[in-house]
Amino acid sequence: MPRIISAVYKGKIGMAQKGKKYAVGIDLGGTKIAVGMVDEAGHILSQARRPTGAEEGYRAVIGRMADAIRAVAEDSAVSLSEVSSIGVGVPGTPDFSDGTVIFAPNIGWRDVPLGRLLREEFGLPVYVDYDTNAAALGEYMVGAGKGARVLLFVTVGTGVGAGIVFAGKLFRGATGIAGEIGHMVMDKDGPPCTCGNIGCLQMFSKGPALADRAAQAIEGEEGSRSTVLRELLRAQGGGLTGEMVIKAAREGDPIARKVFEEGVLYLGLGIANAVSLLNPDVVVVGGGIAKAGDLLFKSLVKTVKERAYPMAAECVDIRLSMNSEEAAIVGAAMLEATWEPLKP
Amino acid sequence: MPRIISAVYKGKIGMAQKGKKYAVGIDLGGTKIAVGMVDEAGHILSQARRPTGAEEGYRAVIGRMADAIRAVAEDSAVSLSEVSSIGVGVPGTPDFSDGTVIFAPNIGWRDVPLGRLLREEFGLPVYVDYDTNAAALGEYMVGAGKGARVLLFVTVGTGVGAGIVFAGKLFRGATGIAGEIGHMVMDKDGPPCTCGNIGCLQMFSKGPALADRAAQAIEGEEGSRSTVLRELLRAQGGGLTGEMVIKAAREGDPIARKVFEEGVLYLGLGIANAVSLLNPDVVVVGGGIAKAGDLLFKSLVKTVKERAYPMAAECVDIRLSMNSEEAAIVGAAMLEATWEPLKP
Repeated sequence: MPRIISAVYKGKIGMAQKGKKYAVGIDLGGTKIAVGMVDEAGHILSQARRPTGAEEGYRAVIGRMADAIRAVAEDSAVSLSEVSSIGVGVPGTPDFSDGTVIFAPNIGWRDVPLGRLLREEFGLPVYVDYDTNAAALGEYMVGAGKGARVLLFVTVGTGVGAGIVFAGKLFRGATGIAGEIGHMVMDKDGPPCTCGNIGCLQMFSKGPALADRAAQAIEGEEGSRSTVLRELLRAQGGGLTGEMVIKAAREGDPIARKVFEEGVLYLGLGIANAVSLLNPDVVVVGGGIAKAGDLLFKSLVKTVKERAYPMAAECVDIRLSMNSEEAAIVGAAMLEATWEPLKP
Repeated sequence: MPRIISAVYKGKIGMAQKGKKYAVGIDLGGTKIAVGMVDEAGHILSQARRPTGAEEGYRAVIGRMADAIRAVAEDSAVSLSEVSSIGVGVPGTPDFSDGTVIFAPNIGWRDVPLGRLLREEFGLPVYVDYDTNAAALGEYMVGAGKGARVLLFVTVGTGVGAGIVFAGKLFRGATGIAGEIGHMVMDKDGPPCTCGNIGCLQMFSKGPALADRAAQAIEGEEGSRSTVLRELLRAQGGGLTGEMVIKAAREGDPIARKVFEEGVLYLGLGIANAVSLLNPDVVVVGGGIAKAGDLLFKSLVKTVKERAYPMAAECVDIRLSMNSEEAAIVGAAMLEATWEPLKP
């Protein structure tokens, strides 16, 4: 009898292949690979982690992934012959037709045949999707967005992205790339974005943007205000991170606080705009910024409630992701069950 | 044999009641009521118009609506016993459960039991929806958005609104009010909106906003620039309209042009943001602003293509509504066929 380490999702999903009751879910991140054996009710039966180690090349990464798949099968006493499929959320752009990872800059991947290699290794169907989509689906099934009619999941880390779940399925848009909330223009004359546009939401709110803006603020106000960030910056030799800014903001550092509050304001405005357009009943915010807790949450909720269309603002519930790793694994495992290939 | 005056939609919709092959579609506007008898393939068999005449009270308006329904039945030689339902698009907020119009400021309606009165008059099911939703559905079925995978319909007139069609059905959001693109915040410190928010898209782009901003520009630059609007303003005793601004802009008036271009820029940014989030394959723009034709179209397309997320911008086609009255009638008639009551 497998050990149940997560038991939350009540609805039965059903695997695509008859008689198969389990699926493997994988969250591929920049630093770690998280793998779980998931049953058709959305329980994680066993879980394993490996370092990503992207610098060793994609074959090494996929080898560690395969190793972790065997480990979770063994730990859960589930035979791979009982597994319906493998689902993977990746930090980049997938080709939905064959599971190739077209581009994943964080881990240096270009046209990596992830789907094919895992299929060859295990002889199972493989579903590869944006990590944001897998996480959104997991939040809907077992996480903070459980049972929402319309769920908007927003993640803020090295970028800002969103996944939309509607009627129990991912809303993918016409060509599979819906959810680019981080590239909504929030200030038509704002800072340039990596996408070539100007004033995108993520240029105010993503981790690296918080770090850059804090570094600029320190330079601009050098000597005029005391800030722990200046010492950090000096000690580090220049490498501030979003985490450092969030930590300093929590400790009350004035510059960190100002930069963080501006990031949260723009994030709130972007979410408010999405709420006006989509009328979701639940918004879940995850990613590194969720660690800011109350400091983030109160002002984010205030902005969304004040700046979304009143009737849409009234009926939306904003929540922080509670256990994002579990959600990402379950969502990846459930990709098969809600997979809708895009029409050609 | 009924005369076919519109024959475009190829897919068969199917009426909800067995054996009934027709539906009545009504577009209730601020100045006119447009009614059509529609068959299950989306053809308008006969069409009638009446003035709204809201100043006479809602019973008179609904009386004229009933009169037009009888006229289209007679003209098309369709008996009301062959009609499956009556669908109405209204310029306000409907109660989806019983077809009451909760609030429609343009025609001064509050809690008007439109659904009940039409049901009592004709003994038929009545479906009441936002005019924007009915128009979006019609554009998808027989108009410029025909067959889109994901259609974003945006209308710009006395307000700015949107309807979203996905998988052949209206995307309504969690509580039925999805599509408030006109209340997306485009400038966090912008002009106050009627909704209580600040910097909403519609405060730059809707007809009355164009008029107000032109009047302000004339006042600010009085005497320094020549503009036909100043004479219009004087002759009218102060009442500029959006149409006048659009007309003057088409004629090359510099102030009208500047105001109009700013309105189109913000409209383009709002649509770009919706494109980044929803990844539609087709955007249809309708309402009074569509009359600006090329003057609108080129700069709107340029803004959306430049300011939406590149992969989403690449695959979106932007079109002007071609025959919005027909689309509104067909969409209203087809409400029944794609009606999905919201879960309680």
